[in-house]
Amino acid sequence: MVGILIVSHSKEIAEGTKKMANQMKQEDIPLEAVGGTKDGHLGTDADMIYKKLEDIEKDDGLIILTDLGSSVMNVEMAIENFSEEIHQKIRIANAPIVEGAIYGAVEASLNHDIDQVLSAIETIKLLDKRNE
Amino acid sequence: MVGILIVSHSKEIAEGTKKMANQMKQEDIPLEAVGGTKDGHLGTDADMIYKKLEDIEKDDGLIILTDLGSSVMNVEMAIENFSEEIHQKIRIANAPIVEGAIYGAVEASLNHDIDQVLSAIETIKLLDKRNE
Repeated sequence: MVGILIVSHSKEIAEGTKKMANQMKQEDIPLEAVGGTKDGHLGTDADMIYKKLEDIEKDDGLIILTDLGSSVMNVEMAIENFSEEIHQKIRIANAPIVEGAIYGAVEASLNHDIDQVLSAIETIKLLDKRNE
Repeated sequence: MVGILIVSHSKEIAEGTKKMANQMKQEDIPLEAVGGTKDGHLGTDADMIYKKLEDIEKDDGLIILTDLGSSVMNVEMAIENFSEEIHQKIRIANAPIVEGAIYGAVEASLNHDIDQVLSAIETIKLLDKRNE
């Protein structure tokens, strides 16, 4: 199963998103979340991200959901510590963090491969939110 | 100033997003968040949303950010309780909840009107997240 790692500037957003994704998925998938700095402030920490990346199952690929651009930089720093083989299995999604993690967890739990999951969450239609 | 109301199924996502939006904005704007059910589970509650809608400043318009489709239904039920005049000032954004709330708070704090803020957050480019 493809895994999902949620990386937010906010520990609350990371944990809340993980809970929502867990509730929506059909089957168990590798699903982890990390957010905030070591001293509990808003921000991300390459070291904390690295530790989560080390622990999470990555055999079938891993998709990382982020919030702001600056979290991507720390994610990329964390990924640099792994071998090229592992590096190839990790993708940063161009998708909204909450909606992408939830739909991604559902797609991954249906046993879709990493390209299918990534494609699904990068083309999420948010149009159903609008009141017309 | 245009206001922003964050409505999530998760209290943690709602509160975390509010903190991030608060940190990014340039000036004070009406900014509130509500999430979860009365008994603390994942979900939304029309009554809780109504109370937040009642309290928040709406004179210059209010943009509501939601996560999943089912929160939109409860938001619409809550809005129904207000007069047509107020109703016209409230818009549900077709935008990702976290990224939309953050960019929306920044745009609103620059004293942009509701159409400008809505247009900005509904066309957010998430492409800078991708590692190529």
